[in-house]
Amino acid sequence: MTDKIFRINMTDLTTAIEDVPEGWAAHGGRGLTSTVVAAEVPPLCHPLGPNNKLVIAPGLLSGTAAANSGRISIGAKSPLTGTIKESNAGGTAAQLLARCHCKAIIIEGQPQAGKWYNISISPGAVSINEETETIGKGNFATAEILKNRFEGKPGFIAIGPAGEMKMSAANISVKDPDFRMRSAGRGGLGAVMGSKGVKFISIDPQDGKVEIAEPEAFKEANRVFVKALANHPISQGLGQYGTNVLVNIINESGGLPTKNFTLGQFEGHEKISGETMYERIQERGGKPKHGCHPGCVIQCSQIYNDANNQYKTSGFEYESIWAMGADCCVDDLDQIAEADSIMDDLGIDSIETSVAMGVAMEAGVLEFGDGEGICRILRDEVGKGTGMGRLIGGGAGMVGQIYGVARVPVVKNQAIPAYDPRAIKGIGITYATSTMGADHTMGYSIATNILNVGGSVDPLSKEGQVELSRNLQIATAAIDSTGMCLFIAFAALDDETCLPALIDLINARFGLKLTGDDVVNLGKYILKTEKAFNEAAGFSKQDDRLPEFFSIEKLPPHNVVWDFSGEEIDSFWDF
Amino acid sequence: MTDKIFRINMTDLTTAIEDVPEGWAAHGGRGLTSTVVAAEVPPLCHPLGPNNKLVIAPGLLSGTAAANSGRISIGAKSPLTGTIKESNAGGTAAQLLARCHCKAIIIEGQPQAGKWYNISISPGAVSINEETETIGKGNFATAEILKNRFEGKPGFIAIGPAGEMKMSAANISVKDPDFRMRSAGRGGLGAVMGSKGVKFISIDPQDGKVEIAEPEAFKEANRVFVKALANHPISQGLGQYGTNVLVNIINESGGLPTKNFTLGQFEGHEKISGETMYERIQERGGKPKHGCHPGCVIQCSQIYNDANNQYKTSGFEYESIWAMGADCCVDDLDQIAEADSIMDDLGIDSIETSVAMGVAMEAGVLEFGDGEGICRILRDEVGKGTGMGRLIGGGAGMVGQIYGVARVPVVKNQAIPAYDPRAIKGIGITYATSTMGADHTMGYSIATNILNVGGSVDPLSKEGQVELSRNLQIATAAIDSTGMCLFIAFAALDDETCLPALIDLINARFGLKLTGDDVVNLGKYILKTEKAFNEAAGFSKQDDRLPEFFSIEKLPPHNVVWDFSGEEIDSFWDF
Repeated sequence: MTDKIFRINMTDLTTAIEDVPEGWAAHGGRGLTSTVVAAEVPPLCHPLGPNNKLVIAPGLLSGTAAANSGRISIGAKSPLTGTIKESNAGGTAAQLLARCHCKAIIIEGQPQAGKWYNISISPGAVSINEETETIGKGNFATAEILKNRFEGKPGFIAIGPAGEMKMSAANISVKDPDFRMRSAGRGGLGAVMGSKGVKFISIDPQDGKVEIAEPEAFKEANRVFVKALANHPISQGLGQYGTNVLVNIINESGGLPTKNFTLGQFEGHEKISGETMYERIQERGGKPKHGCHPGCVIQCSQIYNDANNQYKTSGFEYESIWAMGADCCVDDLDQIAEADSIMDDLGIDSIETSVAMGVAMEAGVLEFGDGEGICRILRDEVGKGTGMGRLIGGGAGMVGQIYGVARVPVVKNQAIPAYDPRAIKGIGITYATSTMGADHTMGYSIATNILNVGGSVDPLSKEGQVELSRNLQIATAAIDSTGMCLFIAFAALDDETCLPALIDLINARFGLKLTGDDVVNLGKYILKTEKAFNEAAGFSKQDDRLPEFFSIEKLPPHNVVWDFSGEEIDSFWDF
Repeated sequence: MTDKIFRINMTDLTTAIEDVPEGWAAHGGRGLTSTVVAAEVPPLCHPLGPNNKLVIAPGLLSGTAAANSGRISIGAKSPLTGTIKESNAGGTAAQLLARCHCKAIIIEGQPQAGKWYNISISPGAVSINEETETIGKGNFATAEILKNRFEGKPGFIAIGPAGEMKMSAANISVKDPDFRMRSAGRGGLGAVMGSKGVKFISIDPQDGKVEIAEPEAFKEANRVFVKALANHPISQGLGQYGTNVLVNIINESGGLPTKNFTLGQFEGHEKISGETMYERIQERGGKPKHGCHPGCVIQCSQIYNDANNQYKTSGFEYESIWAMGADCCVDDLDQIAEADSIMDDLGIDSIETSVAMGVAMEAGVLEFGDGEGICRILRDEVGKGTGMGRLIGGGAGMVGQIYGVARVPVVKNQAIPAYDPRAIKGIGITYATSTMGADHTMGYSIATNILNVGGSVDPLSKEGQVELSRNLQIATAAIDSTGMCLFIAFAALDDETCLPALIDLINARFGLKLTGDDVVNLGKYILKTEKAFNEAAGFSKQDDRLPEFFSIEKLPPHNVVWDFSGEEIDSFWDF
């Protein structure tokens, strides 16, 4: 059975299962969402109006046995940034959608205000159904309801109250094998789903399977690929401490943004570090290792229990812990876990929301360090949609604008994540030039600036950073098209067998003869397609700049500023 | 005594009185503020950071006996729009500053957070003084304090609580002869003044006088000029009904934006019209005619009393009445007057704030028509800086973003004023292309589209609108440089003696030989200077567009949409 486009029109509540246009056939994941958005969404449309489209696409390898191929890409014009947006997540949806022979879901139009629906997908079938029971519910309650309502093990893609309220920081959650939620966090795509009146999508592949053109070659390539992944020391570190292994490392580098980006080191770093978290998980009977989708050989997720040894959160990431922790000066890991859990339940990006809290603290709304205050605001204000709650849910840029704060760490209105660009300059180039607004995952220079993966580039020097970010962004765009987790990149950068094995997997899946050059060209095509959309939406090279304060305020302990000229940044696009 | 630049550095609290650089000598008002901002403010600086500058300049004819020459221009990079900004106001400050031989005040740098100052200006002297007594006070209380503190009749330029809180809709108020406040309303310049830690500027010219190069020629030119102004029927209408004469006229045209820009006519228009207002003023012992500065021969202001015949508000403009009235569906003129009074006291732009209320009503925060609710939110939320209040004070674009509303009438994030661009197309070209964001005063096509002044261009047809807006914007930029009130434009468009008399006034003031061509070239220079700043700040032609909803939602009663292509709009700049 060939893959199809599942098109869903929310204006007239019709659906269609369409052949894949020729130009889209070679694409998957981010490459496909960006291609569809660029082709079908008017760049100047309102992100929450009827002309925006929400595009959901599994990757090229999704639904196969390839290790770590569980990421799903979701794209649209972003209500947070106004740019094109792709945000991807783990969970089971990518694998199950691929088994429904679904190349992509395109949700377009807009129903009558106040009407809510769910969408059911299975092989050869798609339906729109009125929804009431889950409306207004948090993700945890929704998951419970769906567990009872649906037989078997369908996948779910859902929004929480933040998405229903169309907050610019709202995310889209994707069910994992244990009915926990993973998040396509960045850029407010949950608000776009909310604007379409869609509370959740259920995915039931029945007995659908992904066909492999050359099964033996596929198996062999996967063996090599798994070995490369499993052997890399960073994969192993991620398995033990999760992504939170980074707190101590980045603090040591002097690039851990602290107290709304005024310091590069956090006094309380030990208390929120991956090592501390690991010990606590062991003491409380949690799980340090947990996979967000079947087939993951890294397992960076975990089960974090509270002081009573009861489940509190999972997918408890460095970014969230940094943002609620160092950036807001909270050194109590349990308070951070509580905030993380509330944000997962509300369906709101933990980076955007936490950085917004840091800016609100700068404005005097709360004291720095007030973790209880953060939880209260999340629960009683954001969750209930009060003026203050809407404001925080509007993201860091909005909070800065509303409170007249000049130190607002955003690029293209998206919050800058957990690495200060003054002290780790490669990531600053990524923040500035990314087609998505500030996003570390678009070109993770930390690998080479700090972790000495793929070589070594001095984080404090300007030299080599533009090239580093360029190469990483091109490679990332391609990887984001495969359905692969970005954490394969560490092995791909260091182990010469890894990337060829990945290409062999794609070739064996489709019966192709792609080369490394084809993959590089794919990455370049994706970046340029995204950039062209952004230009048509009104973005110019002046938008590829970091906020002024990075250039005029020195960051301790290195006492460095951001010192790239506009011309130097713009040379990123020389390819 | 030659005019000087009064430069005030708020970082180190130093002042300097400098010679006027050669290139600035021919400029005044908007031409000078835009020239200085373009020369000295880095386009990518944060509007509320130390590198933005607040520039205050009287016009070329300020301080002379020329009729209607009382406008003061205030410029900076706008925290609301991110563009260059000039906003002008009446009151006595322009005349008094000119008599201090002050070509412009430039306030730069930034003091320690939480420190407040006032600035005193007199001929040859400027000082920075710590301020406590007026801090946190509304404009009315501040005016009372200053009336008692200062002897004589100094002028004042002040911010209210909104400016102190750095709200993006905060305005700057300028004292009129009766210690009432006039507002430089648009673009959040009050927040820039607040970010500089300046609560007010007092201006005492002592016995300073503006010198006239050719006194007899000046007197004769002014005689002709006054006659042209006084004879024009629109001048007379403005004197009787104020600007609010427009409610019935624009309602009749079908272009009165109603219920957050969903309708072109307001059922309650009679109740809030200029005619109704005039009757009520008469009944309650108010004044239908009142000048905001000495020498005004139009006197469009008024004294509006409450039901107990007590003073309620003045400078009660069509724009404010439309915005709180038709746009929010409030048909009680006393409620609108109460809201206007609160906004004057808070020092917040009545257009931006009221359009923000309309968007908040669309979002369900209040019911349309709830005038009491508006006053309550203004007093208890905006005035106290609560989350909700800050949100409203952030302007219409922020409210739309925070509540996920797609029908948000802004251009470059500034609220669209009282004329729907679907039904009055010339003004739509002005909104789209203005260097300041949506602003009717930048090229008031209503004159020719609706009032048949300067000819007649069908408001519903696309034909001739670009040319109309272009000519008006060029002329307006020049007029805004003279210190003249824009209401001279009606006479200037219809009476062939008016514009030559204005040029004669400038020539006689300085001993020059300017021609009409020189004035046109000045207007062009100003627009292009402003546009170049905006481009360097990241604005592209895609920003010269109206919001999508104008193109996809038909406006009753004419059932028209906005139908200009991007290319057609961009042809505005062909000069």
